Amino acid sequence: MPRLVLVRHGQSQWNLENRFTGWWDVGLSEKGVAEAAAAGELMKAKGFEFDVCFTSVLTRAILTLDIALEAMDRLWLPVFKHWRLNERHYGGLTGLNKQEMREKVGEVQVKIWRRSFDIPPPPLEADSPYNVSRDRRYSGVEVPATESLKDTIERVLPYWDEAIAPALRSGQRVLISAHGNSIRALVKHLSGLGDEEVVGVEIPTGQPLVYELDDDLRLVETYYLNER
Amino acid sequence: MPRLVLVRHGQSQWNLENRFTGWWDVGLSEKGVAEAAAAGELMKAKGFEFDVCFTSVLTRAILTLDIALEAMDRLWLPVFKHWRLNERHYGGLTGLNKQEMREKVGEVQVKIWRRSFDIPPPPLEADSPYNVSRDRRYSGVEVPATESLKDTIERVLPYWDEAIAPALRSGQRVLISAHGNSIRALVKHLSGLGDEEVVGVEIPTGQPLVYELDDDLRLVETYYLNER
Repeated sequence: MPRLVLVRHGQSQWNLENRFTGWWDVGLSEKGVAEAAAAGELMKAKGFEFDVCFTSVLTRAILTLDIALEAMDRLWLPVFKHWRLNERHYGGLTGLNKQEMREKVGEVQVKIWRRSFDIPPPPLEADSPYNVSRDRRYSGVEVPATESLKDTIERVLPYWDEAIAPALRSGQRVLISAHGNSIRALVKHLSGLGDEEVVGVEIPTGQPLVYELDDDLRLVETYYLNER
Repeated sequence: MPRLVLVRHGQSQWNLENRFTGWWDVGLSEKGVAEAAAAGELMKAKGFEFDVCFTSVLTRAILTLDIALEAMDRLWLPVFKHWRLNERHYGGLTGLNKQEMREKVGEVQVKIWRRSFDIPPPPLEADSPYNVSRDRRYSGVEVPATESLKDTIERVLPYWDEAIAPALRSGQRVLISAHGNSIRALVKHLSGLGDEEVVGVEIPTGQPLVYELDDDLRLVETYYLNER
């Protein structure tokens, strides 16, 4: 029976500072490193084994995966990194903390935006220091200037179809280390959530979220590993 | 012009204890972690960029690569892990320190064996705690019971031909993190060393060894990066 485990990266430096990060590449905080190791230790203690791993091209997700794999003595597993698993691009909010966001877009707009499925934040200015579109890791990629949750889901799912689902279908056990919103994309797809529903889903950091699937990759059971 | 950089992993726990390691999977010592970071910092300071990385399926080489890439802010680069880049399999010497080796095989045999290109140590007993042939990472692989340097070279080179050389030919800049003897295999091939010569080549830990090649992957220039 195909099994997939999703892990949201541990606390990053900017989570700690309460700043919108998106495609900006920041490291893990000390707590984030500990969360990643704890995720690996929990999976090891529960006897979870994997055949292939996927992650984004952002350091915080890659480090979370590497630290968890090291804790599991499974650093030798194949790992594929892809920009489609990146966090949602927060556009002009990138780098702002919550107070700065309120000042920039206004209280009313913040509320609309936080609750919406398909309204993106204002685009990131091209001359912003947080513009990563010329970063070599995105060569050949059309880097968005902002994304709604809907946009994020639409660019995550092609990677599910082309890489992750085929691995599961071929009998491989899959571990994914990613981000709040790229994981939401997968959760929406796998759990069959509506647009409204997925907006309200909170993914905790460093908690392995297990999906047991049938051979057609339909949901059989889903649970957080620490609750078993 | 194709460029390849080879890095021997930083000091491992067993290097520190002077024990033969081979395919046994041990972590890095504190010094080894520092060596890996220093290798990454040196490559970054020299402006070295890479497109793809290769390593073995042994933790000490993978960690060395990961730590170096993190120091270079290049953790997002694709990494391929393959058993053919593993250290030489030391057979029945695995786990022994130099004194224990002398007691096991005798002073005369140690000298013959250390200087020889094609004489393997005694095979590892099947019931040895260091027998990794049933480790899941080697499923489908015929794990050797021992290897001469010649044996090691013969199993490394097919991976050069099938994966590394094609990457270089396609214009990718390649970084390899591997082991004393799997790097010797590549050095013998690239520098055109004789069987006797390669036995005497010592590869220092954590020192990026650069190969500048022509389009037919013939040697143009080779040097240790810290000497430039």
